[in-house]
Amino acid sequence: MEHELQAGQLLARGVQRLFGEMNFASITELTPTRRLRVDVMAITPKGDIWIVECKSSRADFTSDNKWQGYIDWCDQFYFATPPDFPTDILPSDQGLIFADSYGAAINRPAPITKLNPARRKKLILNFARCAAQRLHQQIDPRI
Amino acid sequence: MEHELQAGQLLARGVQRLFGEMNFASITELTPTRRLRVDVMAITPKGDIWIVECKSSRADFTSDNKWQGYIDWCDQFYFATPPDFPTDILPSDQGLIFADSYGAAINRPAPITKLNPARRKKLILNFARCAAQRLHQQIDPRI
Repeated sequence: MEHELQAGQLLARGVQRLFGEMNFASITELTPTRRLRVDVMAITPKGDIWIVECKSSRADFTSDNKWQGYIDWCDQFYFATPPDFPTDILPSDQGLIFADSYGAAINRPAPITKLNPARRKKLILNFARCAAQRLHQQIDPRI
Repeated sequence: MEHELQAGQLLARGVQRLFGEMNFASITELTPTRRLRVDVMAITPKGDIWIVECKSSRADFTSDNKWQGYIDWCDQFYFATPPDFPTDILPSDQGLIFADSYGAAINRPAPITKLNPARRKKLILNFARCAAQRLHQQIDPRI
């Protein structure tokens, strides 16, 4: 499977492993609202929501004009990049995770911008249903 | 895999297929609270919660003294049985689903007992984290 994953997906895999170690539950490619699809969304044990955008290269970042839209859909927002990424092009007031295919580490904590309760409720419901439906497809693919 | 599943798990598979057709998201063997593990829990598109207890035989039902505890953890509670189950031994005021390994159908709708918002919130968070963690194990088993 590994050779089929693109650079961003390999970073996402490393991020998900980090989150697993932190007892965060995470999924990839969730759509919190129309026209936004996040690379990794995680729910902490307390129910806080983190969003991670994976950027594998300078071009990957400069071609993206959507990332600011994600901040309104989480309590903490991070970029995840390879350690050799030119991090000076990233906004310095956002969180930063260094990742590779096998793991990740938080380099700079993100500011906390608390979701309002109604949006949090909607997001967690969306996350719950999406994760369960994907799991069901995995376990019983003949549906 | 099929030969490894027990009778109750085969009923659960049929129930999950029904729920998939209904656009419910479901998982098996969730623990909403200590000492309770439910066979199938589903979240409807609106965020309502259904619990299903699978009973494959008379003995399977008569040996269970826990099912009444589940009613407090859902909006609707159902038994799922094979169509040839002696349904006269079941409480007539609970929902009933007829199931086999391949599908299921609602035989008698369950009464609605609305969860309070705090418990619903806790349950959906628990469901979300459990589903995502199991999905992650499926997709990236080397964690």
